[in-house]
Amino acid sequence: MKHELYSILKRGVAETIIEEELIALLNSGKTLRLKEGFDPSRPDIHLGHVVGLRKLRQLQDIGHKVILIVGDWTALIGDPSGASVTRPMLTPEEVKSNAETYMKQFFKVVDLEKTEVRWQSEWYGNFTLEDVIKLTSKFTVAQFLAREDFSKRYNSGRPIAITELLYPLLQAYDSVVIESDVEFGGSDQKFNCLVGRELQQMMGQTPQQVFLTPLLVGLDGKQKMSKSLNNYIAIEDPPDTMYGKIMSLPDEMIIVYFELLTDIPDDQLEEFRGKLINNSVNPMDLKKLLALNIVEQFHDSAAAYDAALNFSRVVQNKEIPEEIVEFSLDSSAFEDAAPVDLIIDVIYRAKLVNSLGDARRLLNQGAIKIDGEKITGKQVSINRGSIIKVGKRRFLKLASNT
Amino acid sequence: MKHELYSILKRGVAETIIEEELIALLNSGKTLRLKEGFDPSRPDIHLGHVVGLRKLRQLQDIGHKVILIVGDWTALIGDPSGASVTRPMLTPEEVKSNAETYMKQFFKVVDLEKTEVRWQSEWYGNFTLEDVIKLTSKFTVAQFLAREDFSKRYNSGRPIAITELLYPLLQAYDSVVIESDVEFGGSDQKFNCLVGRELQQMMGQTPQQVFLTPLLVGLDGKQKMSKSLNNYIAIEDPPDTMYGKIMSLPDEMIIVYFELLTDIPDDQLEEFRGKLINNSVNPMDLKKLLALNIVEQFHDSAAAYDAALNFSRVVQNKEIPEEIVEFSLDSSAFEDAAPVDLIIDVIYRAKLVNSLGDARRLLNQGAIKIDGEKITGKQVSINRGSIIKVGKRRFLKLASNT
Repeated sequence: MKHELYSILKRGVAETIIEEELIALLNSGKTLRLKEGFDPSRPDIHLGHVVGLRKLRQLQDIGHKVILIVGDWTALIGDPSGASVTRPMLTPEEVKSNAETYMKQFFKVVDLEKTEVRWQSEWYGNFTLEDVIKLTSKFTVAQFLAREDFSKRYNSGRPIAITELLYPLLQAYDSVVIESDVEFGGSDQKFNCLVGRELQQMMGQTPQQVFLTPLLVGLDGKQKMSKSLNNYIAIEDPPDTMYGKIMSLPDEMIIVYFELLTDIPDDQLEEFRGKLINNSVNPMDLKKLLALNIVEQFHDSAAAYDAALNFSRVVQNKEIPEEIVEFSLDSSAFEDAAPVDLIIDVIYRAKLVNSLGDARRLLNQGAIKIDGEKITGKQVSINRGSIIKVGKRRFLKLASNT
Repeated sequence: MKHELYSILKRGVAETIIEEELIALLNSGKTLRLKEGFDPSRPDIHLGHVVGLRKLRQLQDIGHKVILIVGDWTALIGDPSGASVTRPMLTPEEVKSNAETYMKQFFKVVDLEKTEVRWQSEWYGNFTLEDVIKLTSKFTVAQFLAREDFSKRYNSGRPIAITELLYPLLQAYDSVVIESDVEFGGSDQKFNCLVGRELQQMMGQTPQQVFLTPLLVGLDGKQKMSKSLNNYIAIEDPPDTMYGKIMSLPDEMIIVYFELLTDIPDDQLEEFRGKLINNSVNPMDLKKLLALNIVEQFHDSAAAYDAALNFSRVVQNKEIPEEIVEFSLDSSAFEDAAPVDLIIDVIYRAKLVNSLGDARRLLNQGAIKIDGEKITGKQVSINRGSIIKVGKRRFLKLASNT
């Protein structure tokens, strides 16, 4: 096995099934069809997803092809591997718009030229009850309830909708339709990918290989990175935000982020690991290299350098950044003391926070200041040019629109 | 409640859900839609089915309407309440032919004029995956596995195909489509009927009432009457066969057969019950009245009287009946001793037995005689005019076709 292939199969990989077969396939000279699906009800990509997408890119770079499946039908059910509620069907317009959002991000990592995009509606749009009956007759309830998350829920009396048993079947049938050679997924997708193998075999195809990537731990250093836990770095985050979030990572995450999210050579990775263990490096210096590397991947070098300089000035030196976003209010807003709700609204609309709830929480924690003063009470006095500071690094200057 | 209605609701009824609501509905003056479904892969009706069909007829006679559903889609799955294997789809021709066979029998009991026939293919022919998802999202796996036969199979490790969970859902959705007021079924259908109630309520309809009839015990006096146990009386059985089968019933079944399968008044039923208890009647005399009553229902009085007389002559007096079926063989068959296999074949083709296996079993039990001689050995001697006797009551005369 070439060094390159060895690294693709070993670094940042949770499990491959079946490894020897996968190696043989990769050495066979055939252009492999690499299956990746996405849920168009969740179009935003964060670094947790990037771990797998980088693997797809590495395999594209040695000649293979990605088949990207727009899961417009499985989205209707919701993957029971995660939170599980049957969701309202997205309208065709929503699916299209979300798919565009997703792909704009996806192709920042994956090579568009070596990708074929397929929509589930091609085959599920005309799926009949007879097709459903044929598909569901091939697996038993016990096989599916053996899946870890199902068995936990079943045994603890939490409901599993009958629909949820369809999810793995539909995902598996996707593999048959696109004639997948290798399916990619996070390690929580193992069961679904294995159902795909079985179904392909039942339907006379060579069963796909399965390539599982580890679940990336989020900013809290504890839980899987996810939007709902708000411990994520979106690949659409602006350079300063992305840089700052990486700098907020616990030190023990530095090596795993280098391993899963950068191309630094394996020997350098080992060198960093050693230096951290024997305290011959300041972790913050390593983290700055990591932040710079990642911001460069999703923006560019210039933006990454600016983010690095901004971070030093603002956070390390507690200064206000050179460039600061302005937010315009109607001039009448400056005449009297403004209600706190207005400030909450402004920092949400200026996207300094993700939700009104976040804004209120920060307010209660005393993490919002106006011109250096913590907000107390129900009203605040503001002026043209007032600086609102949210947390350590988020700033906003008030302007008047007249 | 009128006496008539009282009898409909009390005699030969296993359970009604919810009784007070059902009575109110029956007294409301509305023409009720009574749902009855059948499986076109099993078109033959036996007396076990008649118990429920008689209830339908009684309710038709007081003005209500039967909606007969041809289960051409549920037949594809097979009712998991019974034996459960997913079956090959019947061709449209087979369904049509079986449905004709079924209805020819069905309308011997049920009033054709007050019946609406609906085919599941009207609504399942165009059922989409989205429809399946909506339907399956309304119930949980745990609710369905709580059903007695599922839980037994699940807990003992016997497989339950995921498809089988669809069966109760499709049956329930039938109730929604036809706007069923009351669903009829054997008591083993309780779960499926209750799912129908729930689904109707979820979909904004008044939930149907459920009318469950007892499972009739078969000729063995032990197990539920069924074709597969070969303990049944088919309503297509010829008069002599039907009469003879009823006469073979264990005495303790007499009262329940009168109760479930005849219209004799309740007070006469109690009189019979009393006489049997204090031995003031010969059970065989009661059984003859029962046999006569039932044969009259499915044939006519003349046929029933003939059957009664034949029975007395043949079985009680060990005579050969007056009229005897002839079966023609090629004349060469009479030249040498005939192989036993020929006899087996003849009695099967002449329909004296249901299968070649039955014929062989009777042979081994010494229950087949030729001209009064038990068959032993591999060959038998036969002549033109030889009488083959199978069991106590089945006869055949051999003729030559030249």
